[in-house]
Amino acid sequence: MTVSLVGAGPGDPGLITVRGLDRIRRAQVLVYDRLVAEELIEEAPPGCLAIPRRSLTQAAINDLLVTHGRRGRRVVRLKGGDPFVFGRGSEEALALLRAGVEFEVVAGVSSFAAVPAAAGIPVTHRGLSAQVTVVTARAAGEASLDYGALVAAGGTLLVFMALEALGEVTGGLLAHGADRSLPAAVVSRGTYEDQEVVRAPLGEIAGTAAGLHTPALLVVGKVVDLAALLAPPALGSLVEAAQAR
Amino acid sequence: MTVSLVGAGPGDPGLITVRGLDRIRRAQVLVYDRLVAEELIEEAPPGCLAIPRRSLTQAAINDLLVTHGRRGRRVVRLKGGDPFVFGRGSEEALALLRAGVEFEVVAGVSSFAAVPAAAGIPVTHRGLSAQVTVVTARAAGEASLDYGALVAAGGTLLVFMALEALGEVTGGLLAHGADRSLPAAVVSRGTYEDQEVVRAPLGEIAGTAAGLHTPALLVVGKVVDLAALLAPPALGSLVEAAQAR
Repeated sequence: MTVSLVGAGPGDPGLITVRGLDRIRRAQVLVYDRLVAEELIEEAPPGCLAIPRRSLTQAAINDLLVTHGRRGRRVVRLKGGDPFVFGRGSEEALALLRAGVEFEVVAGVSSFAAVPAAAGIPVTHRGLSAQVTVVTARAAGEASLDYGALVAAGGTLLVFMALEALGEVTGGLLAHGADRSLPAAVVSRGTYEDQEVVRAPLGEIAGTAAGLHTPALLVVGKVVDLAALLAPPALGSLVEAAQAR
Repeated sequence: MTVSLVGAGPGDPGLITVRGLDRIRRAQVLVYDRLVAEELIEEAPPGCLAIPRRSLTQAAINDLLVTHGRRGRRVVRLKGGDPFVFGRGSEEALALLRAGVEFEVVAGVSSFAAVPAAAGIPVTHRGLSAQVTVVTARAAGEASLDYGALVAAGGTLLVFMALEALGEVTGGLLAHGADRSLPAAVVSRGTYEDQEVVRAPLGEIAGTAAGLHTPALLVVGKVVDLAALLAPPALGSLVEAAQAR
């Protein structure tokens, strides 16, 4: 395989897949996103040409992959999360296809469930939520969010890139009838060592989350309340509380 | 850590996380689901007590985890996909919490994006879909699906465990106004070596998918059409076709 589009996972380097790590360790060219953990870049072999994305445009990235791919090099395009979830990986795949360069997609752990889990929130839970809706607050070039449909959906709502427009998104939901008291959380830098979580009712979450760092995920729905029990940092004391009951 | 709730990924054993594989290799007790790849079970060390789930009830599984966890053993609960996506992993977490047994959650690659990707379908793609809705057709103990809301949601719809009620689900969508010509696909045993994919308009997919094997995922939405270009098995000939244009 010439070019591998590899999902690096949500942040924590232990959450890359076995195959993804194998591809990095054999890479001759590695093109990586800003959010990818340094530990993973360091797994590339000596002599590997490591290219940070920095300010490169999507077209420039596509050209890089095609150029090195055509030379038959083992190219790894290392992307945060999963390549095909809000990652424009499919645009890179189409560019490679059109250029006649062989490629593969190595799926990654998306932030979708892993980031809520790192905050003690299961995206589904029997009796609380059997449906998950995933959108991005930064839908560049897309139509804006259909707040009415999001409110009608029920279940768990996940908003990627939430900090960029947190007030706008929560305001839109509330204006379309969402309950102000719905449990909500913002998970900043989820699964990274400097992860931060705030929880508040939907009507107050935008104010509460001010000052958090990107990337951040907004979670709305009854499952958020499970974090009071399942959030890892407080596990010790909560175990005691549960036993005392 | 005593008990690790580990996501095995969607089927292909190369898609387990590096941390998940580490936990298996150090396990003293391994409780695993039917859909977990044999290659992963074989990674457990000699002397590890490997317990297939088979017909055990959820309560019996919880008891197993608590019993071995209380003895301080390194217990791995290996689940298909991600533990917190339709996996009842959060119920196991709550049982451990109530019993005062320390645990961790090791996220896995959910079928959510990896199974469509294995069929050449990105769940999001600029200009085609910026929203994903995830439900399960086998919502045991839950209210039935809200077809009106699912149709109104737009974007990409993913239905887990789709074969169990494919006619009912597609019929429900069509009865609530979904376009019969919407592109749809069923991916059977996605990412396994015996993966099978059928694609058809929504109005015809239930008939077309007859005879496929579980587990299967139904994908509905415009992104399905990208499979005509990106589906891996046909890549060689499609590259030629794309170059000829």
